[in-house]
Amino acid sequence: MKAKLKIIKIGGHVIDDQSQLDQFLKDFAQLEGPKILVHGGGKIATEICQSIGVQTQMIDGRRVTTEKDLEVVTMVYAGLINKGIVAKLQADDCSSLGLSGADSNTIVSKRRAVAPIDFGFVGDIVHINHDLIHELLQLHLSLVFCAITHDGNGQLLNTNADTIASEIAIGMSQLYETELIYCFEKKGVLDRLEDENSVISCIDETDYQTLKKEKKIHSGMLPKLDNCYHALRHQVSKVLIGSPSVISDEGGIYTSLVLSNDKIH
Amino acid sequence: MKAKLKIIKIGGHVIDDQSQLDQFLKDFAQLEGPKILVHGGGKIATEICQSIGVQTQMIDGRRVTTEKDLEVVTMVYAGLINKGIVAKLQADDCSSLGLSGADSNTIVSKRRAVAPIDFGFVGDIVHINHDLIHELLQLHLSLVFCAITHDGNGQLLNTNADTIASEIAIGMSQLYETELIYCFEKKGVLDRLEDENSVISCIDETDYQTLKKEKKIHSGMLPKLDNCYHALRHQVSKVLIGSPSVISDEGGIYTSLVLSNDKIH
Repeated sequence: MKAKLKIIKIGGHVIDDQSQLDQFLKDFAQLEGPKILVHGGGKIATEICQSIGVQTQMIDGRRVTTEKDLEVVTMVYAGLINKGIVAKLQADDCSSLGLSGADSNTIVSKRRAVAPIDFGFVGDIVHINHDLIHELLQLHLSLVFCAITHDGNGQLLNTNADTIASEIAIGMSQLYETELIYCFEKKGVLDRLEDENSVISCIDETDYQTLKKEKKIHSGMLPKLDNCYHALRHQVSKVLIGSPSVISDEGGIYTSLVLSNDKIH
Repeated sequence: MKAKLKIIKIGGHVIDDQSQLDQFLKDFAQLEGPKILVHGGGKIATEICQSIGVQTQMIDGRRVTTEKDLEVVTMVYAGLINKGIVAKLQADDCSSLGLSGADSNTIVSKRRAVAPIDFGFVGDIVHINHDLIHELLQLHLSLVFCAITHDGNGQLLNTNADTIASEIAIGMSQLYETELIYCFEKKGVLDRLEDENSVISCIDETDYQTLKKEKKIHSGMLPKLDNCYHALRHQVSKVLIGSPSVISDEGGIYTSLVLSNDKIH
């Protein structure tokens, strides 16, 4: 039987709220067994960009990572946020190791094609070095990944943290029974966006297609849910979406994603 | 017989000169056997401080690390510089892992006493986690340390990179035959500061005292040399000071530091 491995992603809103982050890290530190944390960026990178006069370039509503942007996100994600998290986990008696994808060559990505739109230094993951990640976990270290990867030719690349989490979960499924948990600002996927308590407890792929057709799912949630189903189709055992407290409160409210539900459609 | 381990420190001037840094990293990547790189900061942190309006506070000619300064050096040292180095080493087929002292709890320090002068978030090393560093080296990873440590209670601290290098060398001497190499902007310790080629090939402690009395040693060099002798007195086998090229050019010019020389005084 494979050992269990939890891969937990926290979004930028948790990073921006110091007391929520501290509580989350205490809960994460308490989790038993091997575990990996993937963190997003928060508002700090944008604030630093503004204060040093780096203009944010947007194409079709999406941010372009210029060379200067890449410098700022590398500083903020891999430096300030990652090391802050690691130091706090150490204080909570959770021995942890902060990583970018360049470290130990853990995550190799490829710069996204420049046509039709050049989004700059953005990387799409091509390989997860699961053997090395396994060896680091064997040292009883909790791994903390920031959203920076590399192309193997010396170039760092900005990479979506949700995708990093799902790709790590998929890559590690060869060796572990993996559980992927996305923590974000809601209690789960909502049936009615205006009602914070209308959390859908379980969504299978058929439900997902229906919800999409009914335009019940907020556009920002679509890539996250696509990552979830991609993970489930590639041997990830369990995928949850919930608030940060979901990691310590198994009986709490969250959305469980499944490929096919037992219930009758 | 203990395995050999090289601990190499590069200063800020190498970081600031991209072509010199690239050449150094190529040389470092080629070195056989386990190795550790410790890097200083360069001018980038100061530039970022200026651009975001953080005033540098100086007391007695020494910089104070305020909370804001600590944020900037954490971003620049642990993020921008460290991950840039790691990505380049990966491209040179040298699998490397970037670390702050908080990562894997490798370097624990204590905030310097605030009396008589409060230098802010500056840490003095109290413990090198040699067992964990050894386990990481056993994974055939070259370790790349930035000059950030932690106090074990969640606080990151700015720590002198020369001291980190010597303390790691001392800590690892329990398990390895250690060689400590300081690479800086000169070819070695100079007999006459105005003559770049007046490199003293070997200095023992008696010579050092004499050179100090004769005020032949530049004040900035004194802490570096103190670190060297401290290392030699604590089981470090070999200590060299030279230009970055010294690591690949064993027959080149450099200064070798020894406790006691065979030559007659």
